[in-house]
Amino acid sequence: MITKYKNIKQQRYNGPKRSGTPRTKTQAPQLVKHFDGKNKLRIIPLGGCEEVGRNMTVFEYNNDIVILDMGLQFPEEDMLGIDYIIPNIEYLKGKEKNIRGVIFSHGHLDHIGAAPILLQKLGNPPIVGRNLTLAMIKHRVEDYEPNSSKKLKTILIKNISDKITLGSFKLSFFQIEHSIMDAIGLILSTPHATIVHPGDWTMERDKNGKAIVDYSHLAKLPRPTVLMLESLGIVSTKASPTSVELKKTLEEIISKAPSRMIIGTFSSQIERIGWIIEIAERLGKKIALTGYSMKMNIEIAQELGYIKAKKDTIIKVEQINNFPENKIIVICPGAQGEENAALTRIIEGSHRQVKIKKNDTIILSSSIIPGNERSIQRLKDNLYRQCDNVIHGALMDIHISGHGTKDDIAYMLKTIRPDYFIPVYANHYMLKEAEKLAQSIGFNPKRIFVPDNGSVIEFDHQGGRLTKEKAIANYVFVDGMGVTDSSNSVVLRDRKMMSEDGMVVVIATIDSKTGDLIGSPDIISRGFVYMKENQELIQKVRLKIKAIIKGRPMPQPGVTEDDYLKNKIRTDVGQFLFQQTKRRPLLLPVIIRV
Amino acid sequence: MITKYKNIKQQRYNGPKRSGTPRTKTQAPQLVKHFDGKNKLRIIPLGGCEEVGRNMTVFEYNNDIVILDMGLQFPEEDMLGIDYIIPNIEYLKGKEKNIRGVIFSHGHLDHIGAAPILLQKLGNPPIVGRNLTLAMIKHRVEDYEPNSSKKLKTILIKNISDKITLGSFKLSFFQIEHSIMDAIGLILSTPHATIVHPGDWTMERDKNGKAIVDYSHLAKLPRPTVLMLESLGIVSTKASPTSVELKKTLEEIISKAPSRMIIGTFSSQIERIGWIIEIAERLGKKIALTGYSMKMNIEIAQELGYIKAKKDTIIKVEQINNFPENKIIVICPGAQGEENAALTRIIEGSHRQVKIKKNDTIILSSSIIPGNERSIQRLKDNLYRQCDNVIHGALMDIHISGHGTKDDIAYMLKTIRPDYFIPVYANHYMLKEAEKLAQSIGFNPKRIFVPDNGSVIEFDHQGGRLTKEKAIANYVFVDGMGVTDSSNSVVLRDRKMMSEDGMVVVIATIDSKTGDLIGSPDIISRGFVYMKENQELIQKVRLKIKAIIKGRPMPQPGVTEDDYLKNKIRTDVGQFLFQQTKRRPLLLPVIIRV
Repeated sequence: MITKYKNIKQQRYNGPKRSGTPRTKTQAPQLVKHFDGKNKLRIIPLGGCEEVGRNMTVFEYNNDIVILDMGLQFPEEDMLGIDYIIPNIEYLKGKEKNIRGVIFSHGHLDHIGAAPILLQKLGNPPIVGRNLTLAMIKHRVEDYEPNSSKKLKTILIKNISDKITLGSFKLSFFQIEHSIMDAIGLILSTPHATIVHPGDWTMERDKNGKAIVDYSHLAKLPRPTVLMLESLGIVSTKASPTSVELKKTLEEIISKAPSRMIIGTFSSQIERIGWIIEIAERLGKKIALTGYSMKMNIEIAQELGYIKAKKDTIIKVEQINNFPENKIIVICPGAQGEENAALTRIIEGSHRQVKIKKNDTIILSSSIIPGNERSIQRLKDNLYRQCDNVIHGALMDIHISGHGTKDDIAYMLKTIRPDYFIPVYANHYMLKEAEKLAQSIGFNPKRIFVPDNGSVIEFDHQGGRLTKEKAIANYVFVDGMGVTDSSNSVVLRDRKMMSEDGMVVVIATIDSKTGDLIGSPDIISRGFVYMKENQELIQKVRLKIKAIIKGRPMPQPGVTEDDYLKNKIRTDVGQFLFQQTKRRPLLLPVIIRV
Repeated sequence: MITKYKNIKQQRYNGPKRSGTPRTKTQAPQLVKHFDGKNKLRIIPLGGCEEVGRNMTVFEYNNDIVILDMGLQFPEEDMLGIDYIIPNIEYLKGKEKNIRGVIFSHGHLDHIGAAPILLQKLGNPPIVGRNLTLAMIKHRVEDYEPNSSKKLKTILIKNISDKITLGSFKLSFFQIEHSIMDAIGLILSTPHATIVHPGDWTMERDKNGKAIVDYSHLAKLPRPTVLMLESLGIVSTKASPTSVELKKTLEEIISKAPSRMIIGTFSSQIERIGWIIEIAERLGKKIALTGYSMKMNIEIAQELGYIKAKKDTIIKVEQINNFPENKIIVICPGAQGEENAALTRIIEGSHRQVKIKKNDTIILSSSIIPGNERSIQRLKDNLYRQCDNVIHGALMDIHISGHGTKDDIAYMLKTIRPDYFIPVYANHYMLKEAEKLAQSIGFNPKRIFVPDNGSVIEFDHQGGRLTKEKAIANYVFVDGMGVTDSSNSVVLRDRKMMSEDGMVVVIATIDSKTGDLIGSPDIISRGFVYMKENQELIQKVRLKIKAIIKGRPMPQPGVTEDDYLKNKIRTDVGQFLFQQTKRRPLLLPVIIRV
């Protein structure tokens, strides 16, 4: 399925040299001096340092560039009609030939979602990732443009101990925990510094609070080391349940369910879906998957052998009525209140095969996407009306956060003891909080850099610094088939106006010979006020327009008569409508001369 | 200020008769039998039982009606341009003369916000409330329509022990705790049942977990008792800090602040603002208030003597630069990310007097309004860039929830031991959870009623029941000056379409003699695609329209030619635009014949 790209230089090397005895203090060592002043390592986060999402980081060493992740960001409340936001790659223009490869830390959309668009724009540089990650990118690329995935040049990380060389960069990897399979941590070695970047990560601990995955080897990498740490969990202090606890809870719920079960979750929660399959097989139940992304992801995971199900465990959702209700588990995405997601359709009664019954048991097992809170409330209300057994996150620990908490971040800093600390991949205020945390445990404030999107951080023989240089990093919107720089905001501004107060088109037809108005002006409004109830208002607007046209002065030099009329209508009619309705619709005057 | 309305019958009565020895079981007693079968008590929640907000409950005893609260609800994500939602009073049409009074439990907008509109529509029935509540209603009524507050007929609850008679209803009150001063609990006595309704409530407890306010007297009211309990906190298990703890935290933060302080909070948090004034006076600091609602509320509270400040403690915000920075505390609303709120303007740099400085200390001390999460994130990011000392709810316990938790609800049920339980004033799923909780502690399931908005609950000599009758209770939207029943949804549907994909107006002028198109069709789009970049697309649309007009068949009976052309343009051009852009703008064809 995933073909290893053969033409890429891919040398083994013997790993970074150990710096001798492990250091016991978090102070920085003398920087490597045997390079001249011309070599520089530059780190430029193009996304992921202001809002959450569109994570992307550029690493540049002289003429070699490698990139980590190409994520998408979901639009904010005021970005009306925008499908999603991708990183701005203006900085890479003209440097495409220097790009030695793009590494993907894991398969979540905020790390791979922009790949179909950006890889193409950058001339399809080689991509590096583990099995599932590459398979998910491939599927997304196909979805975006059929048959285009064959252009992908993939370098598969077969084993966590693989070493890959991309130009001056030497890549090695380390195990981390995250809420999707095949997530990896990256060690990027350059002659000037060793960068450690776990991507997104979380931490499971044993009873003594010790991390189950050992990170102490990261303290022994060649100095100086730079830890770039995803800090999305910095404001959370509550530890998630362990996976053992979660499995137990799930098994308990599933075995106690009086009848059918419907489980809503992220379709990327492949490991958890694997657990549910295991449990189902133990209890003799069938699994039906519904929802495009859910079916696609599980198919990929089965092909890769990441999920093992007996031949007849997974049934088609069309077959659920062929089995007793207490033998059925439906798994679907949509616990976040998204429009058109399978669970939303099930709850709203528009799903073809699955209709909710009173004694179903329904689990909402994932966290809420910010901005969807009210939709979720409505979804829950709707669900509780139809079903007696609803279990969701607020009631029970059924979700493991994919992100390390404040304590976990402190643990990482103390264990890895980097020379430099760059908190990343979170809201800006979280990066600042991570900085405060690092300072509070004794980290040298001069060796912490809090970047913005587009910040340039440089390392050379004199040390590291956050420069004043800024790469362009403003939003790039994906809007239907269009990909637009956000500096072109007029379309959005109009959408916002129309979304609040609607619009009114005024069409006046003028006889070009006599200059008289022909007939009555046409007035069309949408989303403004209910026209049938406001005939009087419309009539008054017509009279106003007639008066404006009749009373217009002789044309002035420099202003055409049409421009004068349009402006006058916009101002006078706009004011009148506001007085009458306290609304400001988008007002479009059209003058037609015949 | 608040004039007691003289013409209303307001008799003292001797309080409800005690039912003898306190009962020890939560079973219902025999119902009162000495009333004939004609008398009925009906309870109709017109709002507050599905979504949060627009709380309003109608109590009807034969020909007497009293109402509790008239709140507003903030619009959901898809109610574009709607200012707010008010309860539907269709049920009260024709019964206005029966309304003996409207009781307001406290002054929050979700309990008084619809009063200016609804009181007027109902012919200004007498209103009952405590001092601050009535003053806030009066201000809101004035804001809505200047000079209209003199029409209000107010009955002031001077003392918590006051008794008021409104027709067949006898009102008495009890102390509750909530996040605004002058909140009260209501006891509504009728010959058939005694209703206990604390309005919104929370519970402070002593070290032994015992509620500081004693509710045990509510167990001794004449039976049967009906507890209508706000259950918004049912899914929350975390106890809030006590007010003593919160005061201490606030004093600590304020005394440690290196320079100026800016505190963002709800303007209705009058008590808390009172604490800050106290602390400021102890530390020799000045308070500046900014934001209309903040200044208004504190003015009311000062007039009523609820906030006592020395003459020179509160200064104008214009004066803040006349004092040393470490002597200044600015208090403003806007910690929830609302557009145009004072704190939002301060953070965005558009506030006239207050500009943020690096060493300011800023507290965001209230909870987030659902739906504003992303705006809040952006606000925080923006704030952290400008200021080194930001303190918010996620980091420190600086907010007390105004709502009792799951444990508190259980405590209330066990203490009051009502005969009937009706969870209200929360999302529907929360009401269901409250029902589950009551059942789990042994409450008789047949005596729990979970109402929807518009449900009719009846009590008579045969007992209580949730009937199948439903009063009309769908949304009523306030949209600028318009107040519209939501069944008229075409305006909203158009706004939604335009907010996502914009709109395109196509104007074709046809010579009515020859039937030929005059000139080229005019095409105007807003919020669709950036026109300058899509000239080719527009040109193709023009050609399509020309072809449609040229190729039109002879008019068919029953369809005018204009209708045919409009439909054809909508279908063909709509399809073409979708193919080209994957967007479906609102398409408005206009045919002009000259």
